[in-house]
Amino acid sequence: MPPEGRRRRIEPRSGVAFELAAGQTLTVIDPMGQQVADLLAFNAADIGEVISSGRTLDYANKIYLTTGDPLYSNRSNVMLDIVEDMVGRHDFLLTPCSKDTFRIIYGDTDPHRGCFGNLAAALATYGVTEDMIPTAFNVFMNVPVDASGSFQVLPPLSRPGDHIKFVARMDLVIGLTACSALQSNGGSFKPIEWEIG
Amino acid sequence: MPPEGRRRRIEPRSGVAFELAAGQTLTVIDPMGQQVADLLAFNAADIGEVISSGRTLDYANKIYLTTGDPLYSNRSNVMLDIVEDMVGRHDFLLTPCSKDTFRIIYGDTDPHRGCFGNLAAALATYGVTEDMIPTAFNVFMNVPVDASGSFQVLPPLSRPGDHIKFVARMDLVIGLTACSALQSNGGSFKPIEWEIG
Repeated sequence: MPPEGRRRRIEPRSGVAFELAAGQTLTVIDPMGQQVADLLAFNAADIGEVISSGRTLDYANKIYLTTGDPLYSNRSNVMLDIVEDMVGRHDFLLTPCSKDTFRIIYGDTDPHRGCFGNLAAALATYGVTEDMIPTAFNVFMNVPVDASGSFQVLPPLSRPGDHIKFVARMDLVIGLTACSALQSNGGSFKPIEWEIG
Repeated sequence: MPPEGRRRRIEPRSGVAFELAAGQTLTVIDPMGQQVADLLAFNAADIGEVISSGRTLDYANKIYLTTGDPLYSNRSNVMLDIVEDMVGRHDFLLTPCSKDTFRIIYGDTDPHRGCFGNLAAALATYGVTEDMIPTAFNVFMNVPVDASGSFQVLPPLSRPGDHIKFVARMDLVIGLTACSALQSNGGSFKPIEWEIG
């Protein structure tokens, strides 16, 4: 488990995995502004239990989560609570960007492995396979949906130094990235920082 | 595999699973109106591949799908295409209703197993476990989202006899329910009908 109180950096277009104990906090910081971090959480004691967009949104009755909102697992247990949020706009609809995202949406012929590939590589050591990766909680991702149901991926509202803080409600394995998709990050790739408390 | 051209009925608050071959069509009919059917699809040759809300919405750039829209898997392959749609409003944000839904949202002390339990029971014969059940494509479910991101679950827009038709793009195992949640179905429980062509 990483030591508490030390700020760590995720380099642009990369990802990490680490353990977070019940009761610990995780702060995700956007050091330069307008950068997304995809966050996954697995039950450290049983990685079949994983963060669930569908359950969380159903219980919240809203698609945008912020301070005070819990993130539920596929078994309807609270995994994390959001306890501080300086930005107030995150996405929980879309899967991590991947080779397929860059092929289908961007038309790239030699696509980057994206947050999906970065998460899969970082989480492999905990026994997580690609098929076990669900829709992530996309920290700072800004996806406004209009009344017709169409949406746009706009630059994040996060300013340099803004953060969001979670508290773990069970022992967790966390996957976290500095997002690899131009569209999500206002056209550039930047680092993400994180700290356990 | 079920025979083609014969209409079958799913009784209220129950569910079925069956195989659908590549190229076959599946028509889901709401015989009485205002009834939801939760639909899941797995690759029949490898049930680790499953319908994915997060990928489908990302590639569609919208949350409401209709005629002409593909439903993608977690591996970014097209599993089904919507080829006819008399209703035009379905949900792809929320997980199947479950014991936990009825406990958390409705406050039930002895909750029904819901679409989640019905799908798990019906799909068990194909090797699908509860943890493998993702957000379903909720046929006829009416979930308008406002600009703030809040949503309501309103009665379906489907009238008696309305249908939606899909064509399979790979050999599939399908899970399908007559939904068990009062809120989703305008306050009553009704059957769903389906037909393979």
